[in-house]
Amino acid sequence: MRKKKKVNAAILIIGNEILSGRTQDKNIVFISNWLNKNCGITVSEARIIPDVEKIIVKNILLLSKSFNYVFTTGGIGPTHDDITAKSIAKAFKVKYSYHSEAYKILERYYGKKKFNDGRKKMAKMPTTAKLIYNPSSAAPGFITKNVISLPGVPSILNSMIDNCKKYLIKGSMVHSTTLNLFTVESNISKKLGEIQKKYKSSVEIGSYPFFRLGKIGVSVVSRSTSQTKLNKVNKELLDLVKVKKIKILKI
Amino acid sequence: MRKKKKVNAAILIIGNEILSGRTQDKNIVFISNWLNKNCGITVSEARIIPDVEKIIVKNILLLSKSFNYVFTTGGIGPTHDDITAKSIAKAFKVKYSYHSEAYKILERYYGKKKFNDGRKKMAKMPTTAKLIYNPSSAAPGFITKNVISLPGVPSILNSMIDNCKKYLIKGSMVHSTTLNLFTVESNISKKLGEIQKKYKSSVEIGSYPFFRLGKIGVSVVSRSTSQTKLNKVNKELLDLVKVKKIKILKI
Repeated sequence: MRKKKKVNAAILIIGNEILSGRTQDKNIVFISNWLNKNCGITVSEARIIPDVEKIIVKNILLLSKSFNYVFTTGGIGPTHDDITAKSIAKAFKVKYSYHSEAYKILERYYGKKKFNDGRKKMAKMPTTAKLIYNPSSAAPGFITKNVISLPGVPSILNSMIDNCKKYLIKGSMVHSTTLNLFTVESNISKKLGEIQKKYKSSVEIGSYPFFRLGKIGVSVVSRSTSQTKLNKVNKELLDLVKVKKIKILKI
Repeated sequence: MRKKKKVNAAILIIGNEILSGRTQDKNIVFISNWLNKNCGITVSEARIIPDVEKIIVKNILLLSKSFNYVFTTGGIGPTHDDITAKSIAKAFKVKYSYHSEAYKILERYYGKKKFNDGRKKMAKMPTTAKLIYNPSSAAPGFITKNVISLPGVPSILNSMIDNCKKYLIKGSMVHSTTLNLFTVESNISKKLGEIQKKYKSSVEIGSYPFFRLGKIGVSVVSRSTSQTKLNKVNKELLDLVKVKKIKILKI
């Protein structure tokens, strides 16, 4: 079997409303799961930054150098606080102007009469960008070099994400298994550490307390690109559960 | 009236489970709102990073230099993947060992017999740290220089955040008003941009589409440390609404 390479991405959430705590971000969870499942791409970092040009420019340059892809969300609408497209053009020193294909799409969608300045603004972007089509509200996202820009509204973002696929190279999908145990972390932490050490290079084991059905428990999550290694870890975990006589929560 | 200064903070979410999309972060919204309301501190950046020591060290050093405070969440439990305390000690080149007060608190909480290695690990931290007491599950958070470390479990974090207050200087609280309008962004974007330009230095105006009661709308959010300036902006916005004959959504 051909060994796929590791492909990673960063997510850059652009928006004062997320930082101020007014709006709960939902795009990180969605993009991260979609990327892993559909493209075998791992999200290695996420940042939330304000609508400030020099901060956007700095982060675009830094993240686009450090990761295979950068996904931005937010700031591509028609109002004054939508400055993502302009900032990306500035970061990459490419022309920011009407994108002819985006202009045509929006003009057709709104009709010539209702195609006002605010709506025209959504066709302004790095002129070298390729479009990510938007089936729900027409205004396209776009890819500039390795930076993919999507809208902030989750329902619209979700409707267009499949259109990103053709621009992405595929990596190795991360498989995961979760064992929900009725115990406390400190009861299993020593053995868990030993198992993690043994499979250090291939499996990532995380331990997360939960409260369910009025009881305390621990979710042990193992993640790996190798299903075989994952099965081995799972066997060792089940042995531990047996020895310690821990109940497993059936969901 | 004494003019308060601007005080800012960054939030550093440490945890593979948030990056992988397994768990929805809820701490950014909570911390940001709490900081603004209780301390007049503005969150200027948030980052989500994996449980990797060198990445944590790098981010702690960078963010603690760039912002007045850094709030970390996650990675202070009893298992192998909890490496926040050790990484912060490394970043600041201070001793990582049992913190005598934390050790006593945990020993009293669990009782000498049940105070096993996993639980003892939660008393290990930068020895120069001051504690953030935890009323719900004993294991304390801590402050090292300007970095405040809290647990990742939202219910526990929420129960201890008031205990951070005594370590924080107060800044100017940001007031905000929201106007929910039944219109589309492009209908008001031009005038909104003009108002923003006029109050550039004092009020931050954001525009966010919403879908409610089967209709499309726009939330116009104005934020400022000056209530007077905010009232002025609000008056101009209401004039715009009147001229354009836009319906306001009453909530």
